[in-house]
Amino acid sequence: MSDIDRLIQLLAKLPGLGPRSARRAALHLLKHRETQLTSLVQALMAAAANVRPCSTCGLLDSTDPCAICADPKRDRGLICVVEEVGDVWALERSGTYRGLYHVLGGVLSALDGVTPDDLRIPALIRRAHEAATQEVILATSFTVDGQTTAHYIVDRLRGSGVKISGIAHGVPLGGELEYLDNATLSAAIDSRRGLD
Amino acid sequence: MSDIDRLIQLLAKLPGLGPRSARRAALHLLKHRETQLTSLVQALMAAAANVRPCSTCGLLDSTDPCAICADPKRDRGLICVVEEVGDVWALERSGTYRGLYHVLGGVLSALDGVTPDDLRIPALIRRAHEAATQEVILATSFTVDGQTTAHYIVDRLRGSGVKISGIAHGVPLGGELEYLDNATLSAAIDSRRGLD
Repeated sequence: MSDIDRLIQLLAKLPGLGPRSARRAALHLLKHRETQLTSLVQALMAAAANVRPCSTCGLLDSTDPCAICADPKRDRGLICVVEEVGDVWALERSGTYRGLYHVLGGVLSALDGVTPDDLRIPALIRRAHEAATQEVILATSFTVDGQTTAHYIVDRLRGSGVKISGIAHGVPLGGELEYLDNATLSAAIDSRRGLD
Repeated sequence: MSDIDRLIQLLAKLPGLGPRSARRAALHLLKHRETQLTSLVQALMAAAANVRPCSTCGLLDSTDPCAICADPKRDRGLICVVEEVGDVWALERSGTYRGLYHVLGGVLSALDGVTPDDLRIPALIRRAHEAATQEVILATSFTVDGQTTAHYIVDRLRGSGVKISGIAHGVPLGGELEYLDNATLSAAIDSRRGLD
């Protein structure tokens, strides 16, 4: 296999890139060799060398503890529990949450044989029992496995004295009822709020 | 800027990847560090070190002359003229053409100040005059600049004794007339063939 074919093959394995866009990306990199290809190699090597999961919350960062865990301005009483690193990035972009995070690294799944010890659940239980922790906010996905994981964590934290909450499920902003799935609509009805 | 942010920023510059898919790609690479990130770094470095434009036809390859120019089974009497390396790849995937190529590296453009000397046009004229060359097939894009470039090459090759042809323009396979643009429909009518 030629060097170009090998490069295209590896680029095509990235999520969001198919064979067609992988070819375009490879050509683009080879055309802008000095500016883009070299910078990308350097960025990949720096990320591979420096980026590690935070030993407290599991977020990927070049420092340990991560920038969020180390930030004295974050509310250390709040821990928001998410499945993956990308979920933290999404919440940070929304710019509303000022507490800490805990990245589980997946969800419990009987089918895939994922047990609590495969996730960062024991570490979460320890963190929840620390004196500073006041509330654990569960923000796992609104899927069967995500909700099973949330229920398991609620069971494990019961009696710890820490407040446990879950993010709201319902109709998203701009969501038209006609196009929403049944489970979201059920949740929106079940979680209805008084407006008076 | 953190190592992750820098990696995402560079990935987002690739054609076909926006900020969202760049974040997913970065996470994917960091999750599969040993298998995918390291392989991608090696493939990028190998491509940067080895891949060069073929000094004959301009195709990118790890060897010079490229695999196509060096292939004794290719018909050396035919030269297909295309704008970019990606066009060669597309024609090779179609699997029907068995001649050689000539990659111009762009199209003539008064607006962008692209002159014949900015493209591989002088080299094409030289190749067209070689004894082995029988036919030059123009396969530049069916755009104003692409067709201007083709006309210019036809003018320059007139009197060289080499046959000059252009690829056919018309209705693509599966193309429904209703959804085709006017220029394609005009070309399809103008280039109509007798069926009797």
